[in-house]
Amino acid sequence: MSVGFSFEVSHHDVRTAARRGVLTTPHGAIETPAFMPVGTQGTVKGLLPGQVRDAGFGLILGNTYHLALRPGAEIVARHGGLHRFMDWDGAILTDSGGFQVYSLAALRKVAEAGATFRSHLDGSLHEFTPEGVIEIQEALGSDIAMVLDVCPPSTSTRSQLEDALSLTTRWAERTVAARKKADQVVFGIVQGGLDMELRRQHAAAISALPFEGIAIGGLSVGEPPAAMYPIAAATAAVLPVDRPRYLMGVGMPPDLPRCVMGGIDLFDCVFPTRAGRNGLLLTRKGRVVIKNAQYREDLTPPDPDCDCPVCTRYTKAYLRHLFVAKEILASVLNTMHNLHFYSRLMREVRQAVLDGTLPELAGELDLAYPVGEDSGEASARE
Amino acid sequence: MSVGFSFEVSHHDVRTAARRGVLTTPHGAIETPAFMPVGTQGTVKGLLPGQVRDAGFGLILGNTYHLALRPGAEIVARHGGLHRFMDWDGAILTDSGGFQVYSLAALRKVAEAGATFRSHLDGSLHEFTPEGVIEIQEALGSDIAMVLDVCPPSTSTRSQLEDALSLTTRWAERTVAARKKADQVVFGIVQGGLDMELRRQHAAAISALPFEGIAIGGLSVGEPPAAMYPIAAATAAVLPVDRPRYLMGVGMPPDLPRCVMGGIDLFDCVFPTRAGRNGLLLTRKGRVVIKNAQYREDLTPPDPDCDCPVCTRYTKAYLRHLFVAKEILASVLNTMHNLHFYSRLMREVRQAVLDGTLPELAGELDLAYPVGEDSGEASARE
Repeated sequence: MSVGFSFEVSHHDVRTAARRGVLTTPHGAIETPAFMPVGTQGTVKGLLPGQVRDAGFGLILGNTYHLALRPGAEIVARHGGLHRFMDWDGAILTDSGGFQVYSLAALRKVAEAGATFRSHLDGSLHEFTPEGVIEIQEALGSDIAMVLDVCPPSTSTRSQLEDALSLTTRWAERTVAARKKADQVVFGIVQGGLDMELRRQHAAAISALPFEGIAIGGLSVGEPPAAMYPIAAATAAVLPVDRPRYLMGVGMPPDLPRCVMGGIDLFDCVFPTRAGRNGLLLTRKGRVVIKNAQYREDLTPPDPDCDCPVCTRYTKAYLRHLFVAKEILASVLNTMHNLHFYSRLMREVRQAVLDGTLPELAGELDLAYPVGEDSGEASARE
Repeated sequence: MSVGFSFEVSHHDVRTAARRGVLTTPHGAIETPAFMPVGTQGTVKGLLPGQVRDAGFGLILGNTYHLALRPGAEIVARHGGLHRFMDWDGAILTDSGGFQVYSLAALRKVAEAGATFRSHLDGSLHEFTPEGVIEIQEALGSDIAMVLDVCPPSTSTRSQLEDALSLTTRWAERTVAARKKADQVVFGIVQGGLDMELRRQHAAAISALPFEGIAIGGLSVGEPPAAMYPIAAATAAVLPVDRPRYLMGVGMPPDLPRCVMGGIDLFDCVFPTRAGRNGLLLTRKGRVVIKNAQYREDLTPPDPDCDCPVCTRYTKAYLRHLFVAKEILASVLNTMHNLHFYSRLMREVRQAVLDGTLPELAGELDLAYPVGEDSGEASARE
């Protein structure tokens, strides 16, 4: 591990592959399994950093793609890095931009050297190389950087997929050679679509490199959870036990215990924050669609079992009013509640690892968050 | 005064009509002259109540028109009133809705009984009567209620204006007869356009009624400040010295010392909050238009002399980034700074009353906020 980092697994579940641990970074220690709120553009949408911290989070995600295009990594660096830029004193993981190049930008070409694309903001032409995105992330000063990966479309042939995987591996090797920063760790990314054999092969290739953690990418991109869980678990099963495993862009509430059961330590997903902005308030019994007329005169909090600053102060009638009136505070309060919900859920997940009750927790959440229910545009990553 | 209320003037300026005092309400005491942030729809746009309090405010404004139409006064009442509904433990003044009926709604008819209008939200037909708006404000449970007034268009003939004033007076008399609540005070409203004689006459008529405070309405509706200041001062000069004087919908920064010099105690204006949402950050040297390219790499705070949570944590480059990226946090932080600016400015105004330096303060602000400069849609009232 680099300076200031460690990852200790403190407990293994007896019934599943779940484990508890602590990921220590120069910006604090995070109990795992952990969920990272998404702060794409240098802010967790709608919240002040102190409010994210108060919700119980010590590690958030930032996006290289977005920050490199706007305001530019150099400006962030001149502030002393992303922590200072956005006034967040916790830890930050930056995504490499690989996913966004494939999903948001107008992709021009993936070549041996890197990926050429046009910005979704102004159409300007850019190239991301493995060395370049590490340099950007070193400028951003994140605690955890991600390698640039190739994200092949789900319609790829097996031969195209194999080409993408070997290019991802070569990019990973170049990343290892390029990294310079002592106080930043770098995670490799395993791809392989829904092909179990390719996933295992690629996991072995990426694990062979000296990354401080390994991510599983390319999941939760439209496939049903029932297809995703076994792939995540089978991939995690062949990853080194002593390194953190990060399942990128996952998950919905049931995904969290399910994938922890498969051996995952870290998650990120825009769902809780985006759902908040879309007026969905999350509870253990499912989502509250706050605009619904049934809440017009409802004097009870969104979740009577929740001790967050929203549920202890506000009624559903007030939150419905704010949402219907398109008040900024609607997004703020709904996001705040949802992050508190995720934080509490992860505490329960961590406790369930100790208690050996993850399957029961997962079963409860399956019922509360049925597959196929409108998720408020819960796509995987931004 | 009603139960729990008092207004004490503690100091009169020797050079001007300015005075300092304390307005005590069941929800706290407010040093005057004071500015009220506008919380039209049950929220000061973008901020949590604690953030408004931390900015230094103990009295905010809510709108009868907006709240009566949505969510409805009865729902607010069922929460125990507006304080509980929005979780604000400070004092609240509610506007009567008169101004909004004339400016926002589709006005149908002003008759002896009241004003009939169609909602700007859904076109539904409503009637506001003097008795009705007091009943609504009693249901909302504000500390200070306003009478329903007639706001004649600025194109009115003198005879139309006189008719509007006498109807406003008759409505004021009906208001006095209708009010029932012991722990709420009611302020009368003086109208009269830019006609000094009519203003004085109407001030005498309204002051003759047992209102606990008197407001001056119908100013800052497009006329230049140079026309507004003398009218406000001349009207204030004939109001009872022992009651608070509230200049509705004013003001821009220079208006505050100028109108305090004329004897005004209370102000409200959407300018600081709306300007924040529009990316204008207020300083003693003028407005910072945060989207401007010159701030792209500016590592200094919006106002180096400001000790607010925004200026002590963030750079103009970060705030520009948030604004350009259309992040919710841009509105939150800009509003927060601007309210801190107004709060500090009012502290300076109150000190200047003691020091006898209001004209100098006003002169400084005239230079920083020149008349005619784009004000970020700083219309008087919402």
